[in-house]
Amino acid sequence: MLSTVSLPSLPYVLDLAGTFVFAISGAMAGVRHRADLFGVLVLSFAAANTGGITRDLLIGVVPPGAINDWHYLAVSVAAGIMTFYFPSDIRRRWNPVLLFDAAGLALFAVTGASKALAHGLNPVMATLLGMLTGIGGGMARDILLAQVPTVLRAELYAVAALAGAAVVVTADRLQLPAGPQ
Amino acid sequence: MLSTVSLPSLPYVLDLAGTFVFAISGAMAGVRHRADLFGVLVLSFAAANTGGITRDLLIGVVPPGAINDWHYLAVSVAAGIMTFYFPSDIRRRWNPVLLFDAAGLALFAVTGASKALAHGLNPVMATLLGMLTGIGGGMARDILLAQVPTVLRAELYAVAALAGAAVVVTADRLQLPAGPQ
Amino acid sequence: MLSTVSLPSLPYVLDLAGTFVFAISGAMAGVRHRADLFGVLVLSFAAANTGGITRDLLIGVVPPGAINDWHYLAVSVAAGIMTFYFPSDIRRRWNPVLLFDAAGLALFAVTGASKALAHGLNPVMATLLGMLTGIGGGMARDILLAQVPTVLRAELYAVAALAGAAVVVTADRLQLPAGPQ
Repeated sequence: MLSTVSLPSLPYVLDLAGTFVFAISGAMAGVRHRADLFGVLVLSFAAANTGGITRDLLIGVVPPGAINDWHYLAVSVAAGIMTFYFPSDIRRRWNPVLLFDAAGLALFAVTGASKALAHGLNPVMATLLGMLTGIGGGMARDILLAQVPTVLRAELYAVAALAGAAVVVTADRLQLPAGPQ
Repeated sequence: MLSTVSLPSLPYVLDLAGTFVFAISGAMAGVRHRADLFGVLVLSFAAANTGGITRDLLIGVVPPGAINDWHYLAVSVAAGIMTFYFPSDIRRRWNPVLLFDAAGLALFAVTGASKALAHGLNPVMATLLGMLTGIGGGMARDILLAQVPTVLRAELYAVAALAGAAVVVTADRLQLPAGPQ
Repeated sequence: MLSTVSLPSLPYVLDLAGTFVFAISGAMAGVRHRADLFGVLVLSFAAANTGGITRDLLIGVVPPGAINDWHYLAVSVAAGIMTFYFPSDIRRRWNPVLLFDAAGLALFAVTGASKALAHGLNPVMATLLGMLTGIGGGMARDILLAQVPTVLRAELYAVAALAGAAVVVTADRLQLPAGPQ
């Protein structure tokens, strides 16, 4: 999946970056709800990978990248352990959970849409799929904590999703490489 | 998917009708919980398409119809916008959310079971799959709002599910066209 | 799937055993929340089969065993009806729900990991998949009841998951039969 260290690997790097920020948002939510380490790691992984796994299932990539490629697990666990043992440090540096969500959403909107394009979906549905998978992680995190997902209330999400979709459409128009696979 | 305008398209029309009523039930629930427009649209889409997407994943139709065919998105968004901007009108005309759930459930039980039959599942498991996917939309809506799904409490659902299953079994016995695809 | 009554059927039997104990835990949770019979059966099925269905979708077994093979439905419904009509009996004999969860988790960790190994995943990700699918049932049950999943709070789960994973790794090293399929 990262066969050559060149431009085509950009979506993959963005995917791992999105995984990292979503994992932190999941872990922080877990720490706030006083989950133990195992629970924090479950939340990290769920927040970080539900979006990508859903995307891959919907476009027929089986097993999904996050299940087949250990980098996603490693990034999620690293973010979770980091957040669990240094929660105040993490919070001090990157304060708002909402910002993490928005960043992860934008990143996953990009990689989700580009991967969907690469698998033959039309631009509109690829954008939808990017957005759907982008909001999947935050939804999974909030649902696991028995809360109404932030995405249903925060306008910031719409902006982030639109930004992500705009990047994808622009990249597609400019004929930039389109998919992580 | 709607290649000729003849009897075989009936399940497809029923599927879109189920999508529409579930989208309204999702949007109404969102309006009541004071979600913004984006949140209402997410709830519309989730309530309307979680059932069908789950069904398609379970029988191996990838990408699922609701991801591949823009009509599902269009119907969901239209119902969501309609409900968001005219909520009192909608409520006045079609009052009980529960009725929408039951209607959507019955419709999806029909189309889900027939599509499962068409993909080779035996009648019993096809009925189960129809019912499972029929209750998926309402479950998704309620879970997203951090509530116990109505389906766990309301007897009406069992009746609707049985009605839907009965229609499917009857249709199958009468050799009526069996699947939307 | 149970073609000969020999050693290879062990994972299948363990899978049905895990289905049974998770179905009871789902049904008991439903009874405590005063769900009707239909709701209890939905919870039984969801708790018992969400893990296995998720596992099968993730490794590309479509339709998933729990959808294709009526034994899973029969076991789930039997456990649900049993628990619904004799809840105090059931509770008296097998008291702690947490124990059922742990047992189901360990069983599914075993069968999930072995099935994932059989489908070509590497040992680390197969263990993860076993654990993921093992905790899926309890998560589904708790989420359906709008509660934070026990798995995020109870250390017992980590122990059960590790035990299950250890069994799988040991079996794999000893070249015992590895998969239910």
